Amino acid sequence: MESIIWHPCSQMKDYEKNPIIRVKKAKGVYLFDEKGNSYIDGISSWWVNLFGHSNERINNAIKNQLEVLEQVIFAGFTHDKALELSDKLIKLVPKNLKKIFFAEIGSSAVEIALKMSYHYFKNIGLKSKKKFVYLENGYHGETFGALSVMGEPLYKKAYDDILIKNIMVEFPNCYRCPFGKTRENCNVECFEFMKKTLEQHVEEVAAVIVEPLVQFAGGFKMYPAKYLSKLRELTKKLNIHLILDEIATGFGRTGTMFALEQACIKPDFLCLSKGLTSGYLPLSLTLTTDEVYYAFYDDYEKQKSFLHSHSYDGNALACAAACETLNIFADENVLENNKKKYTLTKQLIEKYFKDLDCVGEIRSAGFISAIEFVKDRYTKEPFDASLRFGFKIYRKALEKGVLLRNLGDLMYFLPPYVINESEIEKLVKSAYFATKEVMDENIC
Amino acid sequence: MESIIWHPCSQMKDYEKNPIIRVKKAKGVYLFDEKGNSYIDGISSWWVNLFGHSNERINNAIKNQLEVLEQVIFAGFTHDKALELSDKLIKLVPKNLKKIFFAEIGSSAVEIALKMSYHYFKNIGLKSKKKFVYLENGYHGETFGALSVMGEPLYKKAYDDILIKNIMVEFPNCYRCPFGKTRENCNVECFEFMKKTLEQHVEEVAAVIVEPLVQFAGGFKMYPAKYLSKLRELTKKLNIHLILDEIATGFGRTGTMFALEQACIKPDFLCLSKGLTSGYLPLSLTLTTDEVYYAFYDDYEKQKSFLHSHSYDGNALACAAACETLNIFADENVLENNKKKYTLTKQLIEKYFKDLDCVGEIRSAGFISAIEFVKDRYTKEPFDASLRFGFKIYRKALEKGVLLRNLGDLMYFLPPYVINESEIEKLVKSAYFATKEVMDENIC
Ligand SMILES: Cc1ncc(COP(=O)(O)O)c(C=O)c1O
Ligand SMILES: Cc1ncc(COP(=O)(O)O)c(C=O)c1O
Repeated sequence: MESIIWHPCSQMKDYEKNPIIRVKKAKGVYLFDEKGNSYIDGISSWWVNLFGHSNERINNAIKNQLEVLEQVIFAGFTHDKALELSDKLIKLVPKNLKKIFFAEIGSSAVEIALKMSYHYFKNIGLKSKKKFVYLENGYHGETFGALSVMGEPLYKKAYDDILIKNIMVEFPNCYRCPFGKTRENCNVECFEFMKKTLEQHVEEVAAVIVEPLVQFAGGFKMYPAKYLSKLRELTKKLNIHLILDEIATGFGRTGTMFALEQACIKPDFLCLSKGLTSGYLPLSLTLTTDEVYYAFYDDYEKQKSFLHSHSYDGNALACAAACETLNIFADENVLENNKKKYTLTKQLIEKYFKDLDCVGEIRSAGFISAIEFVKDRYTKEPFDASLRFGFKIYRKALEKGVLLRNLGDLMYFLPPYVINESEIEKLVKSAYFATKEVMDENIC
Repeated sequence: MESIIWHPCSQMKDYEKNPIIRVKKAKGVYLFDEKGNSYIDGISSWWVNLFGHSNERINNAIKNQLEVLEQVIFAGFTHDKALELSDKLIKLVPKNLKKIFFAEIGSSAVEIALKMSYHYFKNIGLKSKKKFVYLENGYHGETFGALSVMGEPLYKKAYDDILIKNIMVEFPNCYRCPFGKTRENCNVECFEFMKKTLEQHVEEVAAVIVEPLVQFAGGFKMYPAKYLSKLRELTKKLNIHLILDEIATGFGRTGTMFALEQACIKPDFLCLSKGLTSGYLPLSLTLTTDEVYYAFYDDYEKQKSFLHSHSYDGNALACAAACETLNIFADENVLENNKKKYTLTKQLIEKYFKDLDCVGEIRSAGFISAIEFVKDRYTKEPFDASLRFGFKIYRKALEKGVLLRNLGDLMYFLPPYVINESEIEKLVKSAYFATKEVMDENIC
């Protein structure tokens, strides 16, 4: 039967050849399909899962919450789990962040930061600040506002004509450094691009938005913390907001609870989602400062309020999952225990992949590892896109029982933190054999 | 202690005088706060709840789902509850709607429809179709794309400068008809406004978006089905898409399962959310036709895909709640049983309110009733906004144990369908006494 469901981020025709996999059950790092196959979820189901599928602690937290309250209007009303979550979370972020706005999806958390930043400057009388600066290759979601700061043409191109225009800056392209530097001798020369743009547009720029340390959807591009500390310094000096989108990097993914810790910086806005509920339920947060908050705080008649809302803001079931997520971090020494696991992952990937001809760069940051495949590792020339080299590896790996969704010719390893050593080994080895097979078929 | 949470749709300063209510528990139509007060949830927690808080059937559906699967990446993968939901839902909507795209929030379902419509015309070579037409007073969410078709200045004004420009048309203003007509002798003269605009902009318009029958956030403005049938006829003739936003009207709110049934029309896009999960969890859907779908269906290399995605698309827990919602509709004869309840609500409101001096119009449609308060019921002159007449009634009603959040000087009754007769009576009577008290204080 033809499918009724139009799947996200898909050419539906691809499913003629490679049918959609119907998951019957999931437990820990495993997905089980209707045919009795199992797959290690090597990408944490789009970077959201932290502690495994059907996790007992999160399950119980949600079950308990169901007996109490599932949802209440979040204007004029609040509830215990929203309060508990904000109390807990505020202790984990830089001290300048004092207020939390609740929403449901990552894109929306980003749009809220953009709207607040622009509106803040308007409320304090700086009406010329109407633009946002973003990095080439960055990804912040696909609603219109998020798309307007999208640096990855794949998702944006089709809509260019109906988006507001913001300002894009060359990204820190460490693998193919335009200054001919390597990661070892880099002195963030490329920050010049950002500096020039911000200085040139200072009057009209409200905020800069970046994914700190790792640009996820843009191909797991990784760049040094120093870029971020320079960016914070300059934006502060120029009276421009810094929005950190930690929707994907947050909650331990890069090794620290938040990536910003590695750059020792305090943003004006911090966007969180994905791992926030351990991959259970949509919930997103936009954190900001008292300075921003109080620019909206006034008598109702003054019309300075931030009126944004969504129906399910503050959803109590999602807040319960998020509270339990933070409890697990506190009780189970997660960040420390993760180290051994991600170090092993990195070592195994190095061991298996480093000598393959098609491997351009192996990158890693905490519980993220990525391999960029290229046609020529010396010139770094990419494969012809029509070859779909990465996609073929993804398909082969699936046959071997591991889910490692490619991004173009990039393969990444981003499993739930509960993965064990033998599962890590299976993940890497299956990826290796899948790659070898695709290489052999393509005689590259 | 000062609050960490920045609440949606709020001037936070208002909470100095009227503190946020902390809900400890909710059951059926009741919310219970920390001080031992209870409130009838007369607005279904922002129009989402259908079958009461902590509903046993939905609770069990979610608990069962927790043992099976909470979330899996929805690109390349699917699961039983998503399939069950689409099979069930597709039978309830007009037959031309064949495909369902999953997202999490209402705003996003709207943005998906806008993107798909524009992209469809682009894929078939009609590249000039870049604009959307929307109704004055309409509300479709507050992300940038949804805001660009927002007809209510309250939420939009602050951001006008950073939104793409679309085309607004005068809304069917039945209470203050510009043609001097009444609901009884109306012949949808005001459709002329729409006709003129569409004919004038036909080359550049991709779609018209409306909330069918009732404009919710714009003040529960209600307009005749005939407007919609004319709109469908004309848009069809002009090769313009019709997007129906049934995010608020859907799932029985207006008396029929969907409001479109009352106009006997088939839209090109249908957006659903809110009641879809009985008010439990964020889930939204954008339904469309095969014609639209197949304009994107091609070889990957042709670059026609619709690549939109969100992390939690197809969330299995939300799908389980939605399946059970549809089961309840099927098992419990909901639409039929609702009739008696909403007829009683309407009668009681008429009885208590119709002779009050400050009552401008009483409107109702299915399980929605609304009262518009005015300074002068003959001239229909509104109250001075600074009086906050409606807001005061909301606060008084809360003291009496009923939650009836005002919209400006409009009060609406939109309780969960499980409300019983004595609770309906309490709701209306409390509203009545609250109104009387505010009238006395304002000597109006
Ligand atoms: C008609 C309508 N469309 C869209 C939306 C936006 O949905 P959400 O708040 O989930 O983003 C709403 C929400 O109130 C609505 O009433
Ligand atoms: C860095 C980043 N920002 C924003 C988003 C958008 O979040 P959502 O998909 O929940 O809208 C994503 C999602 O992948 C992301 O990776």
